[in-house]
Amino acid sequence: MAKQERAIRTRRAILEAAGAVFDEHGYTSTTIAMVLERAEVTKGALYFHFPSKVSLAQAVLDEQVPFGAVPPQPCKLQEIVDMTFVVGQRLLGNALLRGSVRLAVDQETPAGVDHGEPFLQWARRLTTLLEVARDRGELLPTVKPPETVELLVGAFTGVQLMSRALTGRADLGDRLAVLWAHILPSIAVPGLLPALDARADRGLRVLASSREWAQEHGEEHAEERAAS
Amino acid sequence: MAKQERAIRTRRAILEAAGAVFDEHGYTSTTIAMVLERAEVTKGALYFHFPSKVSLAQAVLDEQVPFGAVPPQPCKLQEIVDMTFVVGQRLLGNALLRGSVRLAVDQETPAGVDHGEPFLQWARRLTTLLEVARDRGELLPTVKPPETVELLVGAFTGVQLMSRALTGRADLGDRLAVLWAHILPSIAVPGLLPALDARADRGLRVLASSREWAQEHGEEHAEERAAS
Repeated sequence: MAKQERAIRTRRAILEAAGAVFDEHGYTSTTIAMVLERAEVTKGALYFHFPSKVSLAQAVLDEQVPFGAVPPQPCKLQEIVDMTFVVGQRLLGNALLRGSVRLAVDQETPAGVDHGEPFLQWARRLTTLLEVARDRGELLPTVKPPETVELLVGAFTGVQLMSRALTGRADLGDRLAVLWAHILPSIAVPGLLPALDARADRGLRVLASSREWAQEHGEEHAEERAAS
Repeated sequence: MAKQERAIRTRRAILEAAGAVFDEHGYTSTTIAMVLERAEVTKGALYFHFPSKVSLAQAVLDEQVPFGAVPPQPCKLQEIVDMTFVVGQRLLGNALLRGSVRLAVDQETPAGVDHGEPFLQWARRLTTLLEVARDRGELLPTVKPPETVELLVGAFTGVQLMSRALTGRADLGDRLAVLWAHILPSIAVPGLLPALDARADRGLRVLASSREWAQEHGEEHAEERAAS
C-alpha cells in the first residue's frame, strides 16, 4: 500500500472511531485515549492528523454533509427529499454520522468547536438545489428558498432527535414521511405532488439505486465510505 | 409565612436554580453543590425535596409543559399556534425552561432520567387540542391529529435548537413564523387561514394578553411563576 493511501486510511479509521466514541459519550466525556483504543492506531499517528480533541470534533462535524450524497434526479425537489431519507437511513448504520449529529445538537459541545457549521453547510447545499428547483418551475411562487431550507434543516434535526429519544430512530422513516406530507403541499406546484416519492422506505430504495449509480460512474470508493 | 407555603417556595427556588445550572452545564457536569450555591438553601432542604440528581432532573423535565399555558381561544388551532410562540418567548427569559429543554434534547442525559417524557406530554396535550379543532371543523379531512402533533413537537424542538446554535434564540420568533407558514396550509381549512395569527411577535402579544387574562381570572400566581 502506498504511503499516502495508508495515511488516508489511518485518518479515516481515527475519524470513524472518534465518531463512534462521541456518539456514545458526547464531547465532554470523550478522551483521546478512548479514541486511540477504538481506532487501534498509535498516539503519534492520531496527533499527526488531529492535534487536539477540538480538531477531532471539528473534523467529525465536517464529515456530516457528505453523507447526504444521492444520485441526481430530474426533479430537484425529489433530490432534496431523497437527501433527508438517505441521511435518516444512514444514521441507523453509521456511527461516524451519529457522532457528528450528536456534536452538532448537544449543547455540551464547547464554544471552541463550531457546531453551527453543519447547519450552515446543509443550508447552503440545499438552498442551491432549491433554487434550481425554482428555476425549473417546480416550486410555488410564494417559496423563498433560504427560509424553506432553514425550516427543513431545523425540522429534520428535531424529528430525528425525537425519533432517537423515543424509538432509537427505528421510526425515523415514518416520521420523515409525515414531515414531507405536511411541507410538500406548501412548496411544490400541485401538478408535481403525485409524482414525488416521500414514502417511509424511500431511503432504502435510494441507497440501493445509489450503489448501482456509483458503480456505473466508477465512484465505488466514495459511496462505500458514505454508506458503510 | 405558613410552613407549607415556605416549603413550596423552597422547592421552587431549588427547581429554578437546578434549571439554570442544567442549562449552563448539562446533566453530567452539574453537581448538587452547584445547585445548592445557586439556590441558597441548605443541603438538608434540597435532599428533603429531591433525594438525588436524577430526581432533580426529572422534576425539571416535568416543569416543561406548564410553560405552554396560554389563554383559551375560540379557534383551537390558534391556541396551538400560541403555545409554540409563548414557549419560544419564554425560552428567552426563563432558565428553568431552558434547562428543561436542554435535559430533554441532550443525548448526555442518562438513561435513568426519562427524557422522552416531555415529548410525550406535549404530544398528549396538543393531540387533545387538535382533536377539538377537528371536531369544530377547523382541520382538513386528511389530518391525523397524532401524526401532525408528533411532527409539530419534533419540528419545534429542532427549530429552537438551530436558533439557539446560530443566534442564541434571538430569531426564534421568525423561525416559528416560517414553520407555521409551511404547515398551516396542510392542516387548516382554507377559510381559516387569513384569520390565523402566526406572525413572529405573536408570543409577546399573547403573553401581554395572558397577564390580563390571568388577573381577571385570579391566576396571578400561576402566571407569575410560568412567565418569570
